[in-house]
Amino acid sequence: MSLNESLIEQHDALMVALQADETEQLERLLQEMRAADIAEVLEHIAEEEEHRQTVFALLATLSVERRAHIIGYLPEDLQEELANEMSDETLLSVLEEMSADERADLFNLLDEDRREGLLRRMAKQEREDLKRLASYEEGTAGAIMTSDYVAIPSGMTVSQAMMRVRQTAPDAETVYQLYITDTDGRLAGTLSLRQLMVARPGALVDDLMIKDVISVDVEAAQEDVAKMIARYDMLAVPVLDADARLVGIITHDDAMDVAEEEATEDMHKGVSVGKLEGGLRSASLFELYRKRIVWLVLLVFANIFSGAGIAYFEETIEAYIALVFFLPLLVDSGGNAGSQAATLMVRGMATGDVRSRDWAKLLGREVFVALGLGLTMALAVSVVGVFRAGTEIALVVAMSMVLIVIVGSLIGMILPFILNRLGWDPATASAPLVTSIADASGVLIYFALATAILGLPGG
Amino acid sequence: MSLNESLIEQHDALMVALQADETEQLERLLQEMRAADIAEVLEHIAEEEEHRQTVFALLATLSVERRAHIIGYLPEDLQEELANEMSDETLLSVLEEMSADERADLFNLLDEDRREGLLRRMAKQEREDLKRLASYEEGTAGAIMTSDYVAIPSGMTVSQAMMRVRQTAPDAETVYQLYITDTDGRLAGTLSLRQLMVARPGALVDDLMIKDVISVDVEAAQEDVAKMIARYDMLAVPVLDADARLVGIITHDDAMDVAEEEATEDMHKGVSVGKLEGGLRSASLFELYRKRIVWLVLLVFANIFSGAGIAYFEETIEAYIALVFFLPLLVDSGGNAGSQAATLMVRGMATGDVRSRDWAKLLGREVFVALGLGLTMALAVSVVGVFRAGTEIALVVAMSMVLIVIVGSLIGMILPFILNRLGWDPATASAPLVTSIADASGVLIYFALATAILGLPGG
Repeated sequence: MSLNESLIEQHDALMVALQADETEQLERLLQEMRAADIAEVLEHIAEEEEHRQTVFALLATLSVERRAHIIGYLPEDLQEELANEMSDETLLSVLEEMSADERADLFNLLDEDRREGLLRRMAKQEREDLKRLASYEEGTAGAIMTSDYVAIPSGMTVSQAMMRVRQTAPDAETVYQLYITDTDGRLAGTLSLRQLMVARPGALVDDLMIKDVISVDVEAAQEDVAKMIARYDMLAVPVLDADARLVGIITHDDAMDVAEEEATEDMHKGVSVGKLEGGLRSASLFELYRKRIVWLVLLVFANIFSGAGIAYFEETIEAYIALVFFLPLLVDSGGNAGSQAATLMVRGMATGDVRSRDWAKLLGREVFVALGLGLTMALAVSVVGVFRAGTEIALVVAMSMVLIVIVGSLIGMILPFILNRLGWDPATASAPLVTSIADASGVLIYFALATAILGLPGG
Repeated sequence: MSLNESLIEQHDALMVALQADETEQLERLLQEMRAADIAEVLEHIAEEEEHRQTVFALLATLSVERRAHIIGYLPEDLQEELANEMSDETLLSVLEEMSADERADLFNLLDEDRREGLLRRMAKQEREDLKRLASYEEGTAGAIMTSDYVAIPSGMTVSQAMMRVRQTAPDAETVYQLYITDTDGRLAGTLSLRQLMVARPGALVDDLMIKDVISVDVEAAQEDVAKMIARYDMLAVPVLDADARLVGIITHDDAMDVAEEEATEDMHKGVSVGKLEGGLRSASLFELYRKRIVWLVLLVFANIFSGAGIAYFEETIEAYIALVFFLPLLVDSGGNAGSQAATLMVRGMATGDVRSRDWAKLLGREVFVALGLGLTMALAVSVVGVFRAGTEIALVVAMSMVLIVIVGSLIGMILPFILNRLGWDPATASAPLVTSIADASGVLIYFALATAILGLPGG
């Protein structure tokens, strides 16, 4: 049974039990399900306003620990609403059970007064830790790191370190990577639990640890952290502040979430959709409108250039109305080839496959590929062209096709690099943007060629 | 210093040492670099045919263990060439040092005869393991799993299991998740090393293990495995054969690679580019051509419908040539809005945010969003329209814009679901395909409205 099917079954069973008010059956179902799955089902149920209270009631039947775990998987708006429903006592106990990074995220959703009130009721160390984790800007390493790691003071023996691991095990996000710190809290080295387990109990961790540690700065971009974890196959990466002090770690599972989020963002950018906070399903109608309209309207104005181009060649068009048949086809072809080139480039840059020094070489190759594409498409369109509009127009269309595809491809290939140089995200070189530029060029190429080859009746 | 910068520095230093033939400096540099980075630099150097031999020579200076590690990071074509350069003895020792999954991948690149020859020289168990791992179809769980896991026979005590972990540590891909198997090799449960470490030494693993294990079938699609590991924040997932026997595990780092690969594939599909074996950089000119041309030519033929639509309205166009100014703008707008809808939907389905049962609801919402988009864009275009072509044509253009954007958006939203129902990958609902369909609809809407509102001069 696929993940999808089993989830739908669980969802349906839960809904049936819910509507029939079968409390025992409900509790049994929730017991069996995993936190991530409960969260998804609850999110679905909560979409209907009238079921929200039921969701809150359901969660309240679970243990604080389990509730804390599930809440971490819920979308932000639901987390916020849930927190607002809870008393300070309940919220405090839930926060305490959450992992440090998720706790800071939830905390940041609360309003100022509530945050102040909660902080006052926390122990000093807990308060400091939370304030610190909650203070980093979204999108940075600091905002996704956790403080639940195993720090081993420099100078410990293997058996002392082992004891420390056992003590920390219940709370740490991972116990499989140990971080050795000096008296100032600076990261001296790392040691895997695997290495620790096969070492002589009396040996010093300092003699065993790896000193050439891969680490990230607390202000590094989260996508760079994810890339680094993927590149070096790491379980977790240590996060250092400006003084090289260890302030947190980021684990592989959070890196995977970031990578997925970034890929989604890049795909959306590729069609000029702005960043959605939740997914498509949870976004409000207005958010969807807002994130899609900006570029669409800009592109309307950009397209005025194509219109102006056409207006300039009005006489040619009047003389050879059949030219218009091929207009959408030709401009689309340039846009399509250009979008392909842009997407290949943008994704290549995002994954690190393409680096800026490869640019000239790739551009050179693209000329040849585009020439091949253009010639093939010209052949295809001239078959149609001869049949519909005669040899002369077919020739114009075929020649235009070759040029338009080459120009479109080169625009698609160059634009991401220019944007990158200007310090913009290359993913802004979206299909609609490339299409608009390719369109205007296409119109000019097509009608200029037509005017030159066919001539004007009066000319 | 960013990852990018430090890599470029290392690359340059290596090239300088290489060209100056400074062997000691070279060795020192390679010593300091990480396997993944060496692999990237070597890949770059190997792009120039004349440097390939140098790359092979460089690798030969490294220890077999390190060489095996680096080779695992190289693209397939380079792995193949490298293997063909090596003697059977060298290749056997390199294969032995590789992790089981990478060993099977490299093995599959060799030709039949060589494979047979190598297998004959291996120990029986090693041979069976390799043959098994190499036998799974690409894209399945079996093809990416490794057999280097820690299996604990049911009935062991905690201290026996701990001993087993210590023995297996040097070879296992991960020692942090233990798999308890019964006498038939079936998976009975799992236990994390963390749980094992805090347990009483005399306790039985069977009493501690989690029996409700998340596992995948050996024939499951690799992207589903990656999704599962991401969803449940797993270190590794066990892979079972049809008889529920444990045959391998897939670790988080391989899942992350698969997720990245799948995202790239989906982005490429979004602009009708077929699956590239390597990245953009390592693809040959002909491969790039081949993977881009198929849909481009199909779309040329699809665009004939737009041309036919235009031909049908030839008289209207002749009477009101100014209509042509707005043609690229209108058809592009429908295509752009449609590509947005399609991409949101395709990505939502890929990440699991959107499931098929959400379809009707999302479609209903899209009508409202598209209406908002269409009205805003109509407003924008009518400003231009009145100025360039008078009130009547501006009205036609504005009305067409609203309809075209709604129709385009709905096409973009519906197409991925239809494809999914037909058993196709929804990502095939690419921007070019949506654009072509939206174009034909756009042409019909625009000129039909124009004919109806403006009337024909002779009519």
